[in-house]
Amino acid sequence: MYPFTPGSYAPRNGWYVAAFAEEIGEALLSRWILNQPVVMYRTADGTAVALEGRCPHRHFPFGESKRIGDTIQCGYHGITFDAAGKCTFVPSQTTIPGVYSIKRYPLVERGLWAWIWPGDPARADEALIPTLDEIGYTLPGMIPNAFYAMHVKGRYQLLNDNLLDLTHLGYLHGTSIGTPDDAATPEVRDLNERRLSSRRTMLDTPQPPLHMENTDYRGPIDRISGMDFFFPGFHSGIGEQRYPRSHPQAGQIINTSRVWHAVTPATRMTCNYFFAMSATTQERLDRAKITLKPVLDEDSFATEAIEKIIQTMDELPPELMLKSDVTAVQGRRILQAMMDRETLEREGLDAATA
Amino acid sequence: MYPFTPGSYAPRNGWYVAAFAEEIGEALLSRWILNQPVVMYRTADGTAVALEGRCPHRHFPFGESKRIGDTIQCGYHGITFDAAGKCTFVPSQTTIPGVYSIKRYPLVERGLWAWIWPGDPARADEALIPTLDEIGYTLPGMIPNAFYAMHVKGRYQLLNDNLLDLTHLGYLHGTSIGTPDDAATPEVRDLNERRLSSRRTMLDTPQPPLHMENTDYRGPIDRISGMDFFFPGFHSGIGEQRYPRSHPQAGQIINTSRVWHAVTPATRMTCNYFFAMSATTQERLDRAKITLKPVLDEDSFATEAIEKIIQTMDELPPELMLKSDVTAVQGRRILQAMMDRETLEREGLDAATA
Amino acid sequence: MYPFTPGSYAPRNGWYVAAFAEEIGEALLSRWILNQPVVMYRTADGTAVALEGRCPHRHFPFGESKRIGDTIQCGYHGITFDAAGKCTFVPSQTTIPGVYSIKRYPLVERGLWAWIWPGDPARADEALIPTLDEIGYTLPGMIPNAFYAMHVKGRYQLLNDNLLDLTHLGYLHGTSIGTPDDAATPEVRDLNERRLSSRRTMLDTPQPPLHMENTDYRGPIDRISGMDFFFPGFHSGIGEQRYPRSHPQAGQIINTSRVWHAVTPATRMTCNYFFAMSATTQERLDRAKITLKPVLDEDSFATEAIEKIIQTMDELPPELMLKSDVTAVQGRRILQAMMDRETLEREGLDAATA
Repeated sequence: MYPFTPGSYAPRNGWYVAAFAEEIGEALLSRWILNQPVVMYRTADGTAVALEGRCPHRHFPFGESKRIGDTIQCGYHGITFDAAGKCTFVPSQTTIPGVYSIKRYPLVERGLWAWIWPGDPARADEALIPTLDEIGYTLPGMIPNAFYAMHVKGRYQLLNDNLLDLTHLGYLHGTSIGTPDDAATPEVRDLNERRLSSRRTMLDTPQPPLHMENTDYRGPIDRISGMDFFFPGFHSGIGEQRYPRSHPQAGQIINTSRVWHAVTPATRMTCNYFFAMSATTQERLDRAKITLKPVLDEDSFATEAIEKIIQTMDELPPELMLKSDVTAVQGRRILQAMMDRETLEREGLDAATA
Repeated sequence: MYPFTPGSYAPRNGWYVAAFAEEIGEALLSRWILNQPVVMYRTADGTAVALEGRCPHRHFPFGESKRIGDTIQCGYHGITFDAAGKCTFVPSQTTIPGVYSIKRYPLVERGLWAWIWPGDPARADEALIPTLDEIGYTLPGMIPNAFYAMHVKGRYQLLNDNLLDLTHLGYLHGTSIGTPDDAATPEVRDLNERRLSSRRTMLDTPQPPLHMENTDYRGPIDRISGMDFFFPGFHSGIGEQRYPRSHPQAGQIINTSRVWHAVTPATRMTCNYFFAMSATTQERLDRAKITLKPVLDEDSFATEAIEKIIQTMDELPPELMLKSDVTAVQGRRILQAMMDRETLEREGLDAATA
Repeated sequence: MYPFTPGSYAPRNGWYVAAFAEEIGEALLSRWILNQPVVMYRTADGTAVALEGRCPHRHFPFGESKRIGDTIQCGYHGITFDAAGKCTFVPSQTTIPGVYSIKRYPLVERGLWAWIWPGDPARADEALIPTLDEIGYTLPGMIPNAFYAMHVKGRYQLLNDNLLDLTHLGYLHGTSIGTPDDAATPEVRDLNERRLSSRRTMLDTPQPPLHMENTDYRGPIDRISGMDFFFPGFHSGIGEQRYPRSHPQAGQIINTSRVWHAVTPATRMTCNYFFAMSATTQERLDRAKITLKPVLDEDSFATEAIEKIIQTMDELPPELMLKSDVTAVQGRRILQAMMDRETLEREGLDAATA
């Protein structure tokens, strides 16, 4: 499925953001994740739990069910499951069938996020979750804030593509956070097992319009912009603006921020999109929450408009690639390899059990 | 098609409710029935008629056409058909082609309902329609009322499943018409050629909240609850509440009612749902019409929420069955057998004519 | 695809109306044409241009992009194309890849319309566009006006069928522009390489209600009504009303008009519908623009209602044809032959290059 091989759309063995930690509480939170309904809540001892979001009896959604203590009572026939996914009560009989249980997904809270592992739970190694250090969450003097949990009517890879190619900043976001220099400046890439990183350093470059919120200075600046893509769906962005060599305060930081984009497939052709950010003051964050909303809307718009074109055309012509696509293509290849590995393993398993 | 074998979703040879009799009048009433558009009206002599709802010339809907006397004049090119489905007028020519006719469906008014036979008309035996006696329509002192003709965005079998498993009363309708005892009490089943019957007798049981409308008494009661499923889509429900053994008026009836649920496939994944009821006074009926609306909305909600999950998931896991599912499973098997028989006959016919 | 052979829905090698000429200006106009997004605008020198409406880089719609001089700058990553479809600027690199270009569609302005050729550009012979003379555009004393560019949720052939069978005038439009005589009167057909023509002459016939706008006279008239279908999607209609033989001004024209219906597939199951008209005075046109709107809505309604029936039914029964269908059937055969030829050529090409 574009831009992947037919049938594949996202790896299952990987940590995805299921929700902001602050979204998970007393109430049952329901969300589609990789084409499965999932329900989340926080138990009395504060543990965030993610369970299959569908009663195994008649497929009724647990998100529309009732929480009783730490258990979920299905809103339809009252069958009840505890936080481990074990059935604890069947209203119509006194014994509970051995098969009666639902999947509990590995769910780990780290930073602002609750991370879910939709694939084989035996492989859910927490060491694979981005550490708070490597995403710049622990930088001294920086305050992290969860901004928006969104639902976008486009496949998850369209947002990955978006975030792996920041040459769009000066165009899609030309009135806010980017300038043509974002595209004109070559990026430096670095790949390791965990993430694909890219950085641009722009010297003596015009300030993007929105950046002027943070300073009365209107002249050129030095700017660093970059993104680290932690597979399969988390993008940690870096932004730093300094006074340029020509300025009396040369080298001094005007503003620095981290932005975090988590993209999680909802269904095959829709996704969940979680945006968070850190800055040096809460005041800057409060302002950014407002001013960045239209920027996020532009990304959603692009994603949904492209999705519509992909779905409507009979035959989608192959994309014409540019040098700046190296990062996005590398990101796609890594995801495709993850999916291919899963397919092979599944087939091996099928062959072994055949 | 879940929960039936691929391709099958409903028997065609069977009486379904097409409308409340009172809905059929002067105006052309259009309704989808088993994936076919149908048009209904009442002729001058009072006969309710059901015809194909689509002009055989260019597929224009008769529901949007014009009634002229007892005929329907297609709203597009004016081709006119009488109540027998025979073409009586072609505006563009003086002779009427022999092939020009539309299907007239067997339609029988009985009780509050107009019953349609979507399958082979040669088999439309009126004796197969539930009799008014067997559905408790003729009980002395009871007044029958048609309440709601609804359209539900879920496959018809989801509502059959709902009505064949009343253990949901104390949960989906826990704030109105059920208590946990509805599930905890074993049911007694009875099957014959015409219907699958189930009954629960609850002694000294708490009153469901809504039942207290009919009495100032707040203590426990004796209660009978049951449903008779007349294949393929009519459910006749019985409800009776009495003062319990501990009460001075022990055995005396507090309230009794009959409810009738008719479920008719509209398309493969949507259905028509007709709800009617009888009670001992019109006042009780008028109140019930209002108080039962949210209850019906809960059933529609469950049906539509499950339908959405079924349609969205890649692979629907098999249902985990409970002892209380015996009735629903029996009901499904009967419907599946009806569909299998139709398939065999169709194939036999195809073979014979090949 | 109904009513054509499976897979086919419209010829590609043919001139279709893409827009009214007056719609094409400074702003980027986006429109789906034969399942392809197309973008149109007018360059500084006044030339109307139609280009692929989708950036070849990441499929972003050009209709939501930015015009810079005579070029289009993609709203996503800023890649820029000139009016010839040649890439002129890639923000992220200084050289432009040789493959970087988009399709420019042949687009010709003639009369009120901009005509596009979606198929093989080598065959886009302007001589195949209906001439202004043959569609009655140049009649002395007649003023042509573009009225409505509409989007109809039904396949294009349903509107062709509608326009090739004017027996519907007295029924679908019985309160406005037709009478039963439109159906009862036989039509005279004429076919040549360019168009399929049909005419009806009605003598001493009642006036259609809307025609009385143009005269105080209420009696019968002589009337000519006809349509010329220029393949594959343009219908030129003629209407003329005269005083009848019994009238003192016998033979004198009461009103004459030309109506032009252009039908262009948007996607496989939706279409663009352009309606224009000429009359002898601007006042008559201004009134007709208002009074004909409900008539066009009736046609859209019929198209969309039929489309819905076609899409919902499992098996669409074959149409029952009438003598009056000869014109429509002839029109369908011509379109099917055009599509068959294209299929053969494509297969020949595939074979040759295999």
